[in-house]
Amino acid sequence: MRIGAIEAGGTKFVCGIGNESGEIEDRISFPTEKPEQVMEQVISYFKVKKPEAIGIGTFGPIDIDRKSATFGSVTTTPKPGWSGYPFLDTLKREFHVPFGWDTDVNAAAYGEAVWGAAQGLDSCVYFTIGTGIGVGVYSEGRLVHGLVHPEGGHILPRRHPDDRYEGNCPYHGDCLEGMAAGPAIEKRWGVKGSELEANHPAWAMEAYYLGQAVTSAILMLSPKRVILGGGVMHQEQLLPMIRSEVSKNLNGYVSAAQLLSGMDDYIVLPGLGDNAGLCGSLALGLAAWENRDQQQ
Amino acid sequence: MRIGAIEAGGTKFVCGIGNESGEIEDRISFPTEKPEQVMEQVISYFKVKKPEAIGIGTFGPIDIDRKSATFGSVTTTPKPGWSGYPFLDTLKREFHVPFGWDTDVNAAAYGEAVWGAAQGLDSCVYFTIGTGIGVGVYSEGRLVHGLVHPEGGHILPRRHPDDRYEGNCPYHGDCLEGMAAGPAIEKRWGVKGSELEANHPAWAMEAYYLGQAVTSAILMLSPKRVILGGGVMHQEQLLPMIRSEVSKNLNGYVSAAQLLSGMDDYIVLPGLGDNAGLCGSLALGLAAWENRDQQQ
Repeated sequence: MRIGAIEAGGTKFVCGIGNESGEIEDRISFPTEKPEQVMEQVISYFKVKKPEAIGIGTFGPIDIDRKSATFGSVTTTPKPGWSGYPFLDTLKREFHVPFGWDTDVNAAAYGEAVWGAAQGLDSCVYFTIGTGIGVGVYSEGRLVHGLVHPEGGHILPRRHPDDRYEGNCPYHGDCLEGMAAGPAIEKRWGVKGSELEANHPAWAMEAYYLGQAVTSAILMLSPKRVILGGGVMHQEQLLPMIRSEVSKNLNGYVSAAQLLSGMDDYIVLPGLGDNAGLCGSLALGLAAWENRDQQQ
Repeated sequence: MRIGAIEAGGTKFVCGIGNESGEIEDRISFPTEKPEQVMEQVISYFKVKKPEAIGIGTFGPIDIDRKSATFGSVTTTPKPGWSGYPFLDTLKREFHVPFGWDTDVNAAAYGEAVWGAAQGLDSCVYFTIGTGIGVGVYSEGRLVHGLVHPEGGHILPRRHPDDRYEGNCPYHGDCLEGMAAGPAIEKRWGVKGSELEANHPAWAMEAYYLGQAVTSAILMLSPKRVILGGGVMHQEQLLPMIRSEVSKNLNGYVSAAQLLSGMDDYIVLPGLGDNAGLCGSLALGLAAWENRDQQQ
């Protein structure tokens, strides 16, 4: 079958068509301009491709409460034109197919559970560390929404003893995102992270913060796997350093073999690589199709 | 109907009988001695009361993985005789009824969702702050187990700037439990918390730590309500101070009316009061009875 997928990012939109095995057969992408321009391109693409269902994983914050009057809208965002935009309803008027709708990070977590690094598990936490830090949570076989949706990128870590950077989150200053997302690395060291050597002290500091984030996720959510994606994780030296920080933080307290044996199979990169987002949206579309009788 | 409930605490066991409305009709309690002695009393009690189902909410860590060979056992505990003890199997040999089995804090969270402060909601987080700090998580209509079960009492908070206490957690020193459970208050100030005046600086410090815990829970789990129980919460001045810390920490970032309007209906005491644990076990027993066809 033909499933449509939309990975709606803050800087670019990716639309694709895939099948029920998670294989992407076609894709296009374009910049995230004002919603009318973006949606025109999305609609044109899918009018030609004729998907049987469409899954959307989007930047937020968004309304994912099915009982809410503004379900399917972007809520408050500084992005011009997007605040309050009825994203889902605009597409529903054009395509009479089942729709999946969730945050980009929940989509990625779900895609990893269906086809990626957490395949066959009923829980995982997905962090993306890039221009921001986001968290998607899949728990007991369900994506976690709750009151809004998890915003674990803004937890308050302990400051690294050598760190003098004040942090750049407009809401919290030195929260996780304010200290460890790509822009914080660049502001702290004066160059982009991608230009820093693998043995630069920046990475020990980065692992210190991300290790705290993973530790909090383990203690609060007890996931069966933790997946770390996003541009910053392209730094290959980071993953073992983060595992070692988590090990130090937990200090043997949580007694599970997966945690006590080095965590090589527990804290991992996305199995779907940089396709995690688009495949995740595809998985949401597939789930919407499978549950199509419950949607109306 | 007659449902049995066991609230298995580290210092005392409470057994009771209740009905499907959450009303406790009878109860007994006795100290948590060695398992053989405790179980003899539990078995005698229920042999007379003849419940149609039994729910157990117990101190841990415990094995709650149905697929595990040691499902229903206590795992590693310093409590004499309890390490590896087959708690659930011992009772199953005596009573051929459906059993509910979970951690004491998950039981309390569930009881609050069924009959208490989170009634009608499909998510809540329950913290107990007493001789230790534990967290129970109910999310998207299910209790969260995952790899083991949440151990949010051991997250790593930022140190209060005026605090010189080193912390007393044997694993982490200054984790949440090491800084904010009852024994930490007593060791820091030299007297039991119950003897400190309501305006003593101890409480601002306590609210600072508990506020961080609640903030982390909100950001990681996005619960529809946060419930704070346990002996330390008998200090009535604490709750508004904690709400104010959480408000300061979030700083308006998570845009939900429940969080932006003072949180009086969002961060609350247990609706079931000090019965939260026993009623929670009762609720687990009721759920086991309702799902009795799926248990075998």
